[in-house]
Amino acid sequence: MQTPLTEELGIRYPIIQAGMVWTSGWKLAVASARAGALGLIGAGSMKPDLLREHLRKAKATEVSATIGVNIPLIRGDVNELIRVILEEGIKIIFTSAGDPKVHAQKFKDAGCFLVHVVANVKHALKAEAAGCDAVVAEGFEAGGHNGVDEITTLCLIPQVVDAVKIPVIAAGGIADGRQMLAAFALGAQAVQIGTRFAATIESSSHSNYKQAIVDADDNSTVLTLKKIAPVRLKKNIFALGAMNAAAHGATKEEEIELLGKKREMRGIFEGDLENGELEMGQSSGLVKEILSAEDVVKRLLSEYQQAKEKIDTLRIEN
Amino acid sequence: MQTPLTEELGIRYPIIQAGMVWTSGWKLAVASARAGALGLIGAGSMKPDLLREHLRKAKATEVSATIGVNIPLIRGDVNELIRVILEEGIKIIFTSAGDPKVHAQKFKDAGCFLVHVVANVKHALKAEAAGCDAVVAEGFEAGGHNGVDEITTLCLIPQVVDAVKIPVIAAGGIADGRQMLAAFALGAQAVQIGTRFAATIESSSHSNYKQAIVDADDNSTVLTLKKIAPVRLKKNIFALGAMNAAAHGATKEEEIELLGKKREMRGIFEGDLENGELEMGQSSGLVKEILSAEDVVKRLLSEYQQAKEKIDTLRIEN
Repeated sequence: MQTPLTEELGIRYPIIQAGMVWTSGWKLAVASARAGALGLIGAGSMKPDLLREHLRKAKATEVSATIGVNIPLIRGDVNELIRVILEEGIKIIFTSAGDPKVHAQKFKDAGCFLVHVVANVKHALKAEAAGCDAVVAEGFEAGGHNGVDEITTLCLIPQVVDAVKIPVIAAGGIADGRQMLAAFALGAQAVQIGTRFAATIESSSHSNYKQAIVDADDNSTVLTLKKIAPVRLKKNIFALGAMNAAAHGATKEEEIELLGKKREMRGIFEGDLENGELEMGQSSGLVKEILSAEDVVKRLLSEYQQAKEKIDTLRIEN
Repeated sequence: MQTPLTEELGIRYPIIQAGMVWTSGWKLAVASARAGALGLIGAGSMKPDLLREHLRKAKATEVSATIGVNIPLIRGDVNELIRVILEEGIKIIFTSAGDPKVHAQKFKDAGCFLVHVVANVKHALKAEAAGCDAVVAEGFEAGGHNGVDEITTLCLIPQVVDAVKIPVIAAGGIADGRQMLAAFALGAQAVQIGTRFAATIESSSHSNYKQAIVDADDNSTVLTLKKIAPVRLKKNIFALGAMNAAAHGATKEEEIELLGKKREMRGIFEGDLENGELEMGQSSGLVKEILSAEDVVKRLLSEYQQAKEKIDTLRIEN
């Protein structure tokens, strides 16, 4: 199942397992790569030394060529993280949360394939101008940190596809093969999937968190903390408190105080279901069981195939 | 291009022109029906006598069988509107903004095909239980009045399709044929399209408003007035003021005062681009010109066909 993008990345299927905090270490990335997807290690929750350890473990496997890393550019120690990534010879880089222009040249000089995550057309054009080889266009329904513009995947993908010449990867709200087919209908060349892979056996997140994804329904998440940086969370005591504070006009400073420290770790890695941040997308309502990464890829493909056969029966008669 | 739903509705294409305030009178509905779509007259901005006039004009045409009416159930004079609709013998009814159960029996007794608009799985199940023949599942990206749950079309459609046995019509954010194909990939049996039809020659809205849709980009709209009833508007002086008030914790009473009276009419019908409500969806960024309803339908079909041919080239190799 090849697109120009899959050929460039050397992956068998146009599926990218998203780099997520506290979730996608080398184990998940390697399992995803073995299943034919691109596996991304999420540097967002790793100190430079830990990131190096994960990169080395991934590099020691037979699928090292289809392992990449996601790095949030707002990290205070971003330059150190980049140094580690380049020293370890990683060639597939996804950047998010920041301006790719500042760091693009370093990656390009090292021969990396550089992808930046965007949430509107303007930033897609900027990423293209900065020399990125592709963009991830991520919609409002995505879990975790999100753009401020609240543009949904259905509306964002075709507008980004029309605006840029580089390949567009669809992200936000995609957990099954029907949605994957929808993303290709919109013009995407691959899908980046987070929440569905967060609830896999190989995900390093806490089992409580994985089960919280499985237990979610269509209406279980909310985008909140919009005055700091919007983040989509499962509604729990913490998230409902943040919503309530916002409804009463909480300031940025009050939101920062409410958030406190290490809530992502508490929720995702330590499994605190009420007071941690449980980052997940609206697609969590479609995740019904914890599977292996391999089974996730297999299901995506078979669901895709089924949906495709169904729409093949719809013909326009002139 | 037939689905079980199009066969029941007697329409040539699985396209429904949404019933919208100040926009979709008999002229637009008839033009849409002549193009092979279902044309809906929007009762939301009509007094009973005016509604009767529009229904009679539509009934006098050769396409009367594929004209329906959309009626917001929260209207104070809803019973009077329903009486007019039943007296005029209209057989296709779309209800929104309220509980369909209260009125369903009247429509069923009259032999109507009854469709209710929902924005989450729970309300879809309730509509099915109330005897509705289909549901419109409308996502967060839709223009105008919207659900409180903020579930996007991409995530909502497959979850509603999995939950109910009746046909699901996708709405919210759909303006082109790629998105129509995406909706079918997700399991919808038809699409309901608002904004794209609001910017047609036959739309009764003001030319300023139509042009405001054409001028919109990906990031031009916002969902606001969430404490009264969430509504998606183009960002203008009024909408930005409402956003700012919400950020500062405006109460429901303050939002009601801010809204005042007749803002929808001012924006959509009178063309006040700064102080009126300019209801439009995120799909407005995809609308590049004012066309006839017939050309909208033709383009949707040709874009659908093109997108379909493109995904036909993507094959899964095992």
